[in-house]
Amino acid sequence: MTTERVREGGGQYEVNKRQHTTHLYANDHLIVRRGQEFQLKVTFDRPYKPSDDQFAVEFVIGGSPQFSKGTYIPVSVASDRQSPWAGRVLDSADNVVTVGITPAPDCIVGKWRTYVAVVTPYGIRRTRQDESRDVYILFNPWAAADSVFLDDSNEREECVLNEVGVIYHGAFDDVSERPWNFGQFDYGVLDACLFIMDKAAMPITNRGDPIKVARKASAMLNSRDDDGVLVGSWSGDYTYGVAPTSWTGSTEILLNYSSSKMPVCYAQCWVYAAVFNTFLRCLGIPGRVVTNFFSSHDNDGNLKTDIILDENGRIDKQRTKDSIWNYHCWNECYMSRPDLPQGFGGWQAVDATPQETSDGMYRCGPASVQAIKHGQICFPFDAPFVFAEVNSDVVFYSRNPRDGTLEPVKVNSSHVGRMVVTKAPGQDTRRDITDQYKFPEGSPEERTVLEKAEEYGCQREKAILTEADVELDMPLIEVRVGDDFELKLEFNNKSGQARTGDVYVSGNVVYYTGVNTEKKVIQVRSQDYMRKLVEQANLHFIATGKVKETGQIVTAMRVVTLHNPKLSVQVSGLAKVSEEMFVTVEFTNPFKFNLEDVYVRVEGPGVMPPKYKHYSLILAGSSLTWTESFNPRREGPTKLMASLDCAALRQVYGQAQLTVMP
Amino acid sequence: MTTERVREGGGQYEVNKRQHTTHLYANDHLIVRRGQEFQLKVTFDRPYKPSDDQFAVEFVIGGSPQFSKGTYIPVSVASDRQSPWAGRVLDSADNVVTVGITPAPDCIVGKWRTYVAVVTPYGIRRTRQDESRDVYILFNPWAAADSVFLDDSNEREECVLNEVGVIYHGAFDDVSERPWNFGQFDYGVLDACLFIMDKAAMPITNRGDPIKVARKASAMLNSRDDDGVLVGSWSGDYTYGVAPTSWTGSTEILLNYSSSKMPVCYAQCWVYAAVFNTFLRCLGIPGRVVTNFFSSHDNDGNLKTDIILDENGRIDKQRTKDSIWNYHCWNECYMSRPDLPQGFGGWQAVDATPQETSDGMYRCGPASVQAIKHGQICFPFDAPFVFAEVNSDVVFYSRNPRDGTLEPVKVNSSHVGRMVVTKAPGQDTRRDITDQYKFPEGSPEERTVLEKAEEYGCQREKAILTEADVELDMPLIEVRVGDDFELKLEFNNKSGQARTGDVYVSGNVVYYTGVNTEKKVIQVRSQDYMRKLVEQANLHFIATGKVKETGQIVTAMRVVTLHNPKLSVQVSGLAKVSEEMFVTVEFTNPFKFNLEDVYVRVEGPGVMPPKYKHYSLILAGSSLTWTESFNPRREGPTKLMASLDCAALRQVYGQAQLTVMP
Repeated sequence: MTTERVREGGGQYEVNKRQHTTHLYANDHLIVRRGQEFQLKVTFDRPYKPSDDQFAVEFVIGGSPQFSKGTYIPVSVASDRQSPWAGRVLDSADNVVTVGITPAPDCIVGKWRTYVAVVTPYGIRRTRQDESRDVYILFNPWAAADSVFLDDSNEREECVLNEVGVIYHGAFDDVSERPWNFGQFDYGVLDACLFIMDKAAMPITNRGDPIKVARKASAMLNSRDDDGVLVGSWSGDYTYGVAPTSWTGSTEILLNYSSSKMPVCYAQCWVYAAVFNTFLRCLGIPGRVVTNFFSSHDNDGNLKTDIILDENGRIDKQRTKDSIWNYHCWNECYMSRPDLPQGFGGWQAVDATPQETSDGMYRCGPASVQAIKHGQICFPFDAPFVFAEVNSDVVFYSRNPRDGTLEPVKVNSSHVGRMVVTKAPGQDTRRDITDQYKFPEGSPEERTVLEKAEEYGCQREKAILTEADVELDMPLIEVRVGDDFELKLEFNNKSGQARTGDVYVSGNVVYYTGVNTEKKVIQVRSQDYMRKLVEQANLHFIATGKVKETGQIVTAMRVVTLHNPKLSVQVSGLAKVSEEMFVTVEFTNPFKFNLEDVYVRVEGPGVMPPKYKHYSLILAGSSLTWTESFNPRREGPTKLMASLDCAALRQVYGQAQLTVMP
Repeated sequence: MTTERVREGGGQYEVNKRQHTTHLYANDHLIVRRGQEFQLKVTFDRPYKPSDDQFAVEFVIGGSPQFSKGTYIPVSVASDRQSPWAGRVLDSADNVVTVGITPAPDCIVGKWRTYVAVVTPYGIRRTRQDESRDVYILFNPWAAADSVFLDDSNEREECVLNEVGVIYHGAFDDVSERPWNFGQFDYGVLDACLFIMDKAAMPITNRGDPIKVARKASAMLNSRDDDGVLVGSWSGDYTYGVAPTSWTGSTEILLNYSSSKMPVCYAQCWVYAAVFNTFLRCLGIPGRVVTNFFSSHDNDGNLKTDIILDENGRIDKQRTKDSIWNYHCWNECYMSRPDLPQGFGGWQAVDATPQETSDGMYRCGPASVQAIKHGQICFPFDAPFVFAEVNSDVVFYSRNPRDGTLEPVKVNSSHVGRMVVTKAPGQDTRRDITDQYKFPEGSPEERTVLEKAEEYGCQREKAILTEADVELDMPLIEVRVGDDFELKLEFNNKSGQARTGDVYVSGNVVYYTGVNTEKKVIQVRSQDYMRKLVEQANLHFIATGKVKETGQIVTAMRVVTLHNPKLSVQVSGLAKVSEEMFVTVEFTNPFKFNLEDVYVRVEGPGVMPPKYKHYSLILAGSSLTWTESFNPRREGPTKLMASLDCAALRQVYGQAQLTVMP
């Protein structure tokens, strides 16, 4: 008996893909999820006789397959033989046998080669290797025995199957958003994600463990140490690559990386997080992008973000090394944590943005979000770092110019980690998940958690400082990019006595003198800030000063989100699979100055691959109109997302929704 | 007022070194320990007036010193000023002020630059940089506030100050030992140890944390990943370097590495452990070398050492990937673990031998020994790996030749981690510390611990196997290297019925048939084993076979320690500091064959730097005599240690004790 296997025959291919929710992948191979049965048809050269004919389906992965390492899996369909993966005959008719195979729920994830081995009187005969019979086996959040099992179907659909993302940025009290095409089902993306693990020389035997896969990916998504996927740049000059703000999705980045095998230029935090999210969802690990407003980047392992003031109360920029990011994006991935005590499974924080090295490499996590909330930061990986990102105190120090010593003068313990948000499952709104990271500000639980974290080596400022009797506030203002605006400073003198002092903010000095409340404004001119808008449409103001009478320090912070003009995105044509449709992107330069070297990008998951167009000049007041055709690949609701980017204007986005008919 | 500081003046230098127990270092600089006051003399150009003259002693380390990072420390002696390190005037006479300075007990360990800053009417004046004023600040196991504090003075003396080591090897029931010169106080060794951290580009700010220092060193002591200190080789061919068995101490290795800045050839586990121990003791972290007999090297993260047998019961060497080492050496270092819950401080296992990557690099630990004992392997770093080294089950599998599946046929759960030993403090005997790693075999605590470890992902073999009714044992035999010997096999048939079968051991087949106890012997000829003695004078026999009547598997293991001839080491001359003395090393080739390419090494801590001599030929039966002169550097008891090494004969050692008078 010889064998000829026709995998695609009889509709098994489509049945498998539907049952394993892998039908969305633009990939001709069989793609299934572990811990769940799939069907294979084996065609022999004569009718199959169960009593006489012995055969096994063999699965092989990696360079030196071994049974004891789980890289060589022979699956027998005989009822009296035990296989590591269950196998059974579902049906047999004439020459064709349909077998059901259930990969172990902890098996290696990746591209497996398959063979059929038949026992003949002359020994064992195997089918020849045939690349078209390779099977991708992925993580399975639908299978209770898989460590990435996610019980909430709503969240699971969002965090595994949704290609359309929304990423939040701006300020906690003035949140902006941008669309993103995760593109995890796009042609070539699955292979690119597997290539990342190959490039990292990750041992094959570790690739079934989502903890190790996520940790490895957090190292590999950035180019530091290991020639990983994305080169970070915060310089404002992106001449030799794509500006971080210009990308509209992950597909272009991943395909570029897997074909060139070289890091792609450039990324900032949301790009790292978005591409990491594609990686997770593509392999079947539930993942989401979260945004933390006022994220502390604590570079010396304590729980303090240190701001150094000179003797006048002005920020000493040279000596202030810690930083607070207006916002920072990272990822969460969902999995059990058998390596930790009970209760620390579920969402795990991982971060691919190169901030600090973890154990010698630029990577971070997975750190149990539940452990962070409870201050249990003694467990791997990098929980103290993530804890600091949401819990640091901002400590202002006055520097003694004579000997360089620092004295703490003000502590703000509610500034950092002001709000953590992510996209809500199944809808385009945002969800506040701050309570998953922290107990409410000022609650007894919060206090207990901070004390617990201190036990594990987090240092906090212990000096007892008297509150200044003059409060300073910079209230929210709405500003359109390109407009001049007034930054407001409100002094609230609670002492009942005269107070005077200089307050420094962004190169300006504001002289305050008064007994009660006083308002001051600073004129901020567009020509001054536009040149400094190196990366994002946010302006971060920190006002600091010293009260003459008391020597006390007053401080206030304000992030001004600059509201950008929108891109218009219009869709026309019959929204039907394979039919030609058109998208028109329009933009009018609203400024009094010309825009140079402008890139416009557009793409849509399942309907249009990433495309871009370059405009060397858009005159002040003039418009561009760009129409492209596309043919939807699959049915269902989707979006077209577009960006416009140039050195003088970044973060301009637009989108259009459409639903494609079968 | 200008300043001129004379550090060495007035005996402060010697006083400091004695008080800080750093007088043993062959190093002209001031060396002190943190968390403990030391004295500096500052000489001014006119008498010091406390009321008028303001000055500070400044300590600076690394490339960009900063107060907030703890790399720039101004120490004021004025009573009204707080310094991060305490400072006070102890005495002042004329132009000379003696200041007492207490570095913080968690300050950075390394070579600090010092300055004196004087406040003058024209501003602050600093002394110029002067390399001779650099101060080494080390960890301080004598200071209760230091995280490496070790309360037991006996252990502390041994694990910080003793340069003479004994390293155990061989078999648990036939232990051999070899001397080692740790040489942590030898000229150039302290600088070499600091160079290792520089070479690793370890952030200066991490160098006060013994956890991070020990982890970094475990990565850097081997050359894998990072061009660290020692290249491992188990090949038996050491032509292009020094054979692991030939080294007599750490000094030559460390000085070679720091001058060439290239990895040194070659090491095996005890060389890694010995040089790591020098690093720890040199920097002031209590350290010791431990030996684990039957150490499992578990290469796939489970708690099983898998031995694959073919259908006849013979070991399938190609498919058996896990290994059991006759013995394995690693290190322990003593420190608190503020990053872990209470109770996990104390001895920590660290290992520099490249076995498996930890989080992407070849390194291991620090893992709390207490946590390993209790199965609490969820805490960093690498506790599961060390746990497996002492707790693995040896599982014998029978391989089905048809489809490659494996079936467990025998489990030996008491073989691995048979005994853990280290040198006893203050004497040359060994101490069994197995109980620090494990509860007694078969105790209820042991069972609980294994269950706990399983919760954290350690897999164990669960198959319930019937014990074979035939037991096989290979009893202890004493063998001199070069002698033919008889390996004994004792079959004990407890079934009362006839049993037959073949047993395979080291290329031999022993046919057994009988009803009761039966003894068999295998002739092992010296000419057969001498050629295979690639590295160590141990032979590891694993006997396996299958009982025909029952199909049951019988196994036994035996390590035969080959007892080597000794080197004679004789000392002559007056044992007094700086006087000329002589050492004579003698050896007679006891074999019937010539020894070629023979290296003889000799050295002694505090008395003689490492020296070696090469002999191209030592004829059968002939002798060598080598006499070298040396001048003891310091008083006290010490040893001269010698080795002889060639391809045909390794692990030949000798030593002589002497006490040097002042």
